[in-house]
Amino acid sequence: MKPLELIHSSLEKRVLVELRGGREYRGILEGYDHPHLNLILRNAEEYMNGEKKRDLKKVIVRGDNIIYISP
Amino acid sequence: MKPLELIHSSLEKRVLVELRGGREYRGILEGYDHPHLNLILRNAEEYMNGEKKRDLKKVIVRGDNIIYISP
Amino acid sequence: MKPLELIHSSLEKRVLVELRGGREYRGILEGYDHPHLNLILRNAEEYMNGEKKRDLKKVIVRGDNIIYISP
Amino acid sequence: MKPLELIHSSLEKRVLVELRGGREYRGILEGYDHPHLNLILRNAEEYMNGEKKRDLKKVIVRGDNIIYISP
Amino acid sequence: MKPLELIHSSLEKRVLVELRGGREYRGILEGYDHPHLNLILRNAEEYMNGEKKRDLKKVIVRGDNIIYISP
Amino acid sequence: MKPLELIHSSLEKRVLVELRGGREYRGILEGYDHPHLNLILRNAEEYMNGEKKRDLKKVIVRGDNIIYISP
Amino acid sequence: MKPLELIHSSLEKRVLVELRGGREYRGILEGYDHPHLNLILRNAEEYMNGEKKRDLKKVIVRGDNIIYISP
Repeated sequence: MKPLELIHSSLEKRVLVELRGGREYRGILEGYDHPHLNLILRNAEEYMNGEKKRDLKKVIVRGDNIIYISP
Repeated sequence: MKPLELIHSSLEKRVLVELRGGREYRGILEGYDHPHLNLILRNAEEYMNGEKKRDLKKVIVRGDNIIYISP
Repeated sequence: MKPLELIHSSLEKRVLVELRGGREYRGILEGYDHPHLNLILRNAEEYMNGEKKRDLKKVIVRGDNIIYISP
Repeated sequence: MKPLELIHSSLEKRVLVELRGGREYRGILEGYDHPHLNLILRNAEEYMNGEKKRDLKKVIVRGDNIIYISP
Repeated sequence: MKPLELIHSSLEKRVLVELRGGREYRGILEGYDHPHLNLILRNAEEYMNGEKKRDLKKVIVRGDNIIYISP
Repeated sequence: MKPLELIHSSLEKRVLVELRGGREYRGILEGYDHPHLNLILRNAEEYMNGEKKRDLKKVIVRGDNIIYISP
Repeated sequence: MKPLELIHSSLEKRVLVELRGGREYRGILEGYDHPHLNLILRNAEEYMNGEKKRDLKKVIVRGDNIIYISP
């Protein structure tokens, strides 16, 4: 299975997105693009170093800073 | 939905743009380009580590440093 | 042997993936793409500076941050 | 409006250019290129962390380090 | 002589690979790719800041982090 | 005027080249390439954080690390 | 003169190669490639922050980390 297929099959499901700098986003994957792996999350929660920082109704996370995506 | 479509549908609306290095911009999205995701914000406020730093009537934010865009 | 062939021959086997910033992932390699070297790991364990942090049933690790992959 | 159009319409006007590392340049925009966004400023002032450091009659600022350009 | 030719002529020989962040790998070069300069090492030893950290029977080192390769 | 034209018109003139990491080079511009903006300086002086470090009869400065070039 | 021509004319001559992170290499330039500017040095000496660290009979220095090359 290709990474992109796994991302595609995660649409409309909850994902965990880990970014550089201790950032973490949890929300429903609403979209993505290729090859940048920019993501749209809905009803997202932002965590910094494990502490919740913000709720974001919608957020476009740039792929550049992503370390991993866990469906 | 593709990230670019969500950005497009956010034109002339208020967005929150988070950058590396504790920078945050809030303003009305007036334009963008593809694939760099450079943005034009109007009536923007610049925050550094949560504290307001400046008002910027117009500002072109380079896409490179963007972590997320929240419509 | 090309690096990509070794990655291909490691499919469905346990691999160790070392990332920048003291991160390490151990799990079964379920997929990869080329040329980004994004990986899918199954039943993965995440370590930070040698300490276990999390279990991840599935995880897509972006190739950008990878230092090495050891089959 | 595209970011590039706003840059173009700022030619021969004063702009503020913010760079990584606490650098800021203020001067008259005399030229730019695409897609790098390298800029030529005339009668520019260089600031480091808010303090004026130098006057530069002409300066080519590489686009790579730019965070934002404010016309 | 091109760098790639020297790498090619080092196949099946011991090489020293220095990476950013104080990492060093010593092992037998089993493969490489172009233009990324990803390498396969066999019977490799990993050093961190001069201290041995691990033995790796096989390892794919991403070219991105390499500072130098010494045959 | 394009940045490249200004660089071209600075050939055989003294330029100031500011790099990341507090490095500065002053010398006569003898050549450049495009699009990397690698430069050749002749009779160059190297400064680190404002203090002179070395004289370099000829030096090829990689464009990657350049912040600005001032003719 | 183009930077590449100066590098070419330095073949089989001693060069000084300055890298990010306080690294310096001195040796005879035996080869290079384009456009990466990976270099082969022969009979090279490695310096860290001005102190000699190692002799390297042959070394391929990746162009990515190079700040300057001085023939």
